[in-house]
Amino acid sequence: MAKNLVRVGLMGLGNIGTGTYTTLEMNRDLIKANTGIDFEITKILEKDVDRKRDIVVPMDKFTQNPDDLFLSPDIDVVIELLGGVQPATDLMLAAMNNGKHVVTANKAAVAANYDALREAAEKNKVMFRYEASVGGGIPILNALTTVLGANSFIEVLGILNGTTNYILSQMTDFGLEYDDVLKVAQEKGFAEADPTADVEGHDVANKLSILISLAFGVRVPPEAIPTEGITKVTKDDIKRAAKSGSKIKLIATAKKENGNLTYSVRPTLIPLSHPLAGVNNEFNAIFVKGNAVDELMFYGKGAGPLPTGSAVMGDVIEIGTAIAKDSAYDLKVAGGAKK
Amino acid sequence: MAKNLVRVGLMGLGNIGTGTYTTLEMNRDLIKANTGIDFEITKILEKDVDRKRDIVVPMDKFTQNPDDLFLSPDIDVVIELLGGVQPATDLMLAAMNNGKHVVTANKAAVAANYDALREAAEKNKVMFRYEASVGGGIPILNALTTVLGANSFIEVLGILNGTTNYILSQMTDFGLEYDDVLKVAQEKGFAEADPTADVEGHDVANKLSILISLAFGVRVPPEAIPTEGITKVTKDDIKRAAKSGSKIKLIATAKKENGNLTYSVRPTLIPLSHPLAGVNNEFNAIFVKGNAVDELMFYGKGAGPLPTGSAVMGDVIEIGTAIAKDSAYDLKVAGGAKK
Repeated sequence: MAKNLVRVGLMGLGNIGTGTYTTLEMNRDLIKANTGIDFEITKILEKDVDRKRDIVVPMDKFTQNPDDLFLSPDIDVVIELLGGVQPATDLMLAAMNNGKHVVTANKAAVAANYDALREAAEKNKVMFRYEASVGGGIPILNALTTVLGANSFIEVLGILNGTTNYILSQMTDFGLEYDDVLKVAQEKGFAEADPTADVEGHDVANKLSILISLAFGVRVPPEAIPTEGITKVTKDDIKRAAKSGSKIKLIATAKKENGNLTYSVRPTLIPLSHPLAGVNNEFNAIFVKGNAVDELMFYGKGAGPLPTGSAVMGDVIEIGTAIAKDSAYDLKVAGGAKK
Repeated sequence: MAKNLVRVGLMGLGNIGTGTYTTLEMNRDLIKANTGIDFEITKILEKDVDRKRDIVVPMDKFTQNPDDLFLSPDIDVVIELLGGVQPATDLMLAAMNNGKHVVTANKAAVAANYDALREAAEKNKVMFRYEASVGGGIPILNALTTVLGANSFIEVLGILNGTTNYILSQMTDFGLEYDDVLKVAQEKGFAEADPTADVEGHDVANKLSILISLAFGVRVPPEAIPTEGITKVTKDDIKRAAKSGSKIKLIATAKKENGNLTYSVRPTLIPLSHPLAGVNNEFNAIFVKGNAVDELMFYGKGAGPLPTGSAVMGDVIEIGTAIAKDSAYDLKVAGGAKK
């Protein structure tokens, strides 16, 4: 019999961690019915046990010692949702070196240490997945690496940051200046108190670096991507764009022409007739052009606890399904070539 | 060493078959570099050998005897691109009963014989995939069944037929009547000489039946779906819709409310602010709402030789990758648990 219980260790129970926990709890029976596998989050690495959360988590799941996840033979998969490059990267490497499969939503860590993380996964023969790191709930990375595998990609174009898309959308719809919209966005919690990573385009550059790796098979570190944020966009720029039948969007782009790959993150005029022009406020979208499939666009919520939790748990389910299949094979090996 | 050559038999070398053949030929080296597997179409079941095609196919690949595909121990995967319910269904069943994995783009056959085809796959322990049957190149079926697996779906809404979307778009953009646009569409090859299956909504009902199976886990045969086509839509209807800030689209919908699933195919008012309103002419889109991921939309070319070929070959690559992994395991079993 194949393995039908997959135990998961979770690092970080902030907003995304809570969304992931909630996603599993609310759909656990359905997932079990569809996959035959019961997924359970058994250990949670989190200092802030007392933080107010909308979920009920048994106290004995909490630990402050990562070894309770890494050295437990029961735990198959470790989810990293701490954010930031470190200690997240070192913890993911340690998890893989201890034979754990790893799932993360952490674009900063994946973009900064892509090679090291991929190599650790390969060396330890574990799976490493990061669907939630680009486009939140939008399943773009899986599509690029599986079902679109018969394509040579020509172009990737994305609106990859909800905060800046919200600000530009509000400036466009209400004729407002950047500073005024940012202030309201911060009050509403749509923008961070320190919005630098979003508004200067660094968050988008991280995501584009990951997309380039998967779509074009080359590694371009985020700091090598020419990046301009939205802080210099004025309401007059937006008015002028509207007059020419366009919108200004913060666009991440990578394009292959005559064997050369060019890429950038910058405010860009998008004609109203282009599908990306209709992607407003907190929504994200990734537009892809392949030499067989032609134009595709994936649209959805690029952030938020539950959409991101959907992508994280999607990766966990894929890994769990592969583990179950492997364990069936291992039993076959152990028992000889019996039917 | 795992299997690194996967041989494919192709049934039908019409438009879609030619697109599939072309997709593989143009990207074969890239696919091999990415997967480590060389895919080759070795046999083609096709009567019309002399038809004018844009591709060069060695004569010895052609056969008129399906057993040359089914009984050949060399062939791992059979692609069915004949179209129509029969003999396509019987040929797919025969292929599976001979241990072949099957990929198809045939929505009519899949919708009509979903249970029989799924059961044959299960009985014979072969893979059966049909991504291209819904939305052409748009990878919606894979998303529903893999990466979105952590969701309970609430709603699926789609523009699933390029011909009718083209006709409605032209009626909307140029204020024309249905009959006049249909005539031009037929002249341009965008609509069939007998357009019934498209314009009466039957093609869309087939696709919705497949989507319902995968999103909601229930089987609703296409003939059980209340279906109305676009033949009664007038230019006045469209004008009235525009005045109320909407467009008329042929929408396939399935919605779960209080445990009840409702579904239909019919011309529907879509507010201009809805992402489906921007899906025009030959494009298709599927809008999905899940209880974790919230709103997602997948947009792309719902037909055409290369986009459909992309989806067909995507399925073949997925199967080939699984075969390669299985053969590695089988070698492990045969040779004992050696590294």
